[in-house]
Amino acid sequence: MNSPITASLDLLSGTQEVEAELSKLLEQRTLQAAAYSTNFSELWNLASGCVLGGKMVRPRLLLGAFDALTSAQGGGSVFRDSAVRIAAAIELLHYSFLLHDDVIDGDLTRRGRPNLIGTILQSRELHSAKDLHWARTGGILMGDLMLSLTHQVFARESLPEAMRTQLLDLLDHTITESVAGEQLDVGLSDGVITPDLGTILAMSASKTAAYTFEFPLRTAAILAGSGPAIEQTLMSAGHHLGLAFQLQDDLLSVFGTPSSHGKDPFSDLREGKQTAITCYARMTSAWPSIEPTFGRNDLTIEQGKALRSHLVECGAQRFAEGLVDEQLTAFLEVLAESEIHEPISPSVRRVLLCLMTELDGRRR
Amino acid sequence: MNSPITASLDLLSGTQEVEAELSKLLEQRTLQAAAYSTNFSELWNLASGCVLGGKMVRPRLLLGAFDALTSAQGGGSVFRDSAVRIAAAIELLHYSFLLHDDVIDGDLTRRGRPNLIGTILQSRELHSAKDLHWARTGGILMGDLMLSLTHQVFARESLPEAMRTQLLDLLDHTITESVAGEQLDVGLSDGVITPDLGTILAMSASKTAAYTFEFPLRTAAILAGSGPAIEQTLMSAGHHLGLAFQLQDDLLSVFGTPSSHGKDPFSDLREGKQTAITCYARMTSAWPSIEPTFGRNDLTIEQGKALRSHLVECGAQRFAEGLVDEQLTAFLEVLAESEIHEPISPSVRRVLLCLMTELDGRRR
Repeated sequence: MNSPITASLDLLSGTQEVEAELSKLLEQRTLQAAAYSTNFSELWNLASGCVLGGKMVRPRLLLGAFDALTSAQGGGSVFRDSAVRIAAAIELLHYSFLLHDDVIDGDLTRRGRPNLIGTILQSRELHSAKDLHWARTGGILMGDLMLSLTHQVFARESLPEAMRTQLLDLLDHTITESVAGEQLDVGLSDGVITPDLGTILAMSASKTAAYTFEFPLRTAAILAGSGPAIEQTLMSAGHHLGLAFQLQDDLLSVFGTPSSHGKDPFSDLREGKQTAITCYARMTSAWPSIEPTFGRNDLTIEQGKALRSHLVECGAQRFAEGLVDEQLTAFLEVLAESEIHEPISPSVRRVLLCLMTELDGRRR
Repeated sequence: MNSPITASLDLLSGTQEVEAELSKLLEQRTLQAAAYSTNFSELWNLASGCVLGGKMVRPRLLLGAFDALTSAQGGGSVFRDSAVRIAAAIELLHYSFLLHDDVIDGDLTRRGRPNLIGTILQSRELHSAKDLHWARTGGILMGDLMLSLTHQVFARESLPEAMRTQLLDLLDHTITESVAGEQLDVGLSDGVITPDLGTILAMSASKTAAYTFEFPLRTAAILAGSGPAIEQTLMSAGHHLGLAFQLQDDLLSVFGTPSSHGKDPFSDLREGKQTAITCYARMTSAWPSIEPTFGRNDLTIEQGKALRSHLVECGAQRFAEGLVDEQLTAFLEVLAESEIHEPISPSVRRVLLCLMTELDGRRR
């Protein structure tokens, strides 16, 4: 996990600048909230802690790509400060999605630690139905506030009209994509939508690839003024990397060791999450051995281990690994293709290849 | 209810223009959603029906005030079309708030008819826990989409920079106010916040007065370029009228006849809603007779009627009516005060007095 190339991605510039920008924004909001009630400022305070504790993957990606694009164009850009503010806003959007996702899933933790809802509950030292309702309401309302703040940052940024419109279009598109993907995800879990492979991959593309990879990369291209061909290359590259990341994440959740990825072991199996893995397994003769315990809340460790073995033996793990490879191949083809038409600079290639290497590092 | 003055408010111009604008916006979104999935376009389709079936109170108020302000300034304004689009956006914001309010309250109906969640459930002809989860998720996600669309309309409107910033500030302020008010409301219901009269009135001011009255009136003043004194007058007038409306609404919910106001009889008493009425009753010797059945889900009609009688006899009804009168007096004082400093035109006075008359018409 700590190969030199992965480490170089961690050092992509801008993390501190984005954190400073987020701190400023969130402090203002927390202070402002104090004029309403202590509960309201407490909500902002707790949410601020959650946001600032994040890994800032999307802002780092945006600024890494932006700096690479502008340095290739001769270095320096009057829009560097705008890029930092927009990067901060993208982190707020991400957090807004996480909050509503947790409300929808009824989750009190994320990556093994209490999420905002869990933190509000803890702060009350009670767990009555009304306390839970109060905490969940905090999640819904803070999600709305973070979503609004994202839009406010985009709307107020002083940019040339054409660039402004491009960014607003992209923000609009990204939110639509993500919400459509979340609806598919919930529909698959609730049994409202049939879990075929095409639908599952469309869900991953909309829910994850669009806002985690395509959005920061395309935003960087727009702010750097790189033109539509480069933006298109970054979008396609981000799409395939995003899908590969999501598929890899699904693999890690089922087959990985918790210490390396921080996820609850068996949580996806317990929730009955519909993934490419389970979609493949459903078509094999192993499914009758899997179905009775798959999606059971009370799944034991023994049963979880048995499910894992079935999923390996029936070829579902290998199938999903094959899909990851397909996406990575498609990603490399996008890069090769771009060389023929409008080449991206070596520094931008490096950012993208760093991402791919980070993904490869997560294989187990 | 059909006095000539009330009727004249119904005729405030612009309803059709706003409906046409909303239809256009919502049709675009529904078409766009079809590219994702039938479930996604169905969600937009159902939500569009709910929005277009609304009473458009806020857009009518905005355009009524805008036209009155501009006609007083000599008539005509290059921002008339912007006012229509912003009025449509305010209706979308209102609907976004309603959706998340219904999710928070667990409601499947609004004003006696199925809300979006109830409609999604009906369309599935099933009511399993998973169907309910699916329907509620639709409410959360559509609330996010409507909130985002509101921001997009504000961000894209082509306006002079100063006016743009004023509107973005006001939108930001209004959303913060409304969310803070909603948090207070839920905290009062969940017993997390102590129900004293000051808190209850602050909740009504934030949750209702701010976005239903102050927001459209101030937006009209900004778009009409009326200057800060007029905007301040409209804000104060809207504040007092908004509080009076909310207090009157609480009175109607408990003491009114359902046929005249469309509310479920006893629903507030069944939910244990904390209002100025119950706040007063709590301080009287009648409270021990009220408390045992107040807030009971299984409240019978007999018990509801008994609660009503107690609330009349202990003086709580009279007390709340007195608060309505106080707010209306304060409203008239704002108008009188404005005459001394910067008078609002007779046409704007007429819009505000129409609102007050409509409120008086709702007294029983």
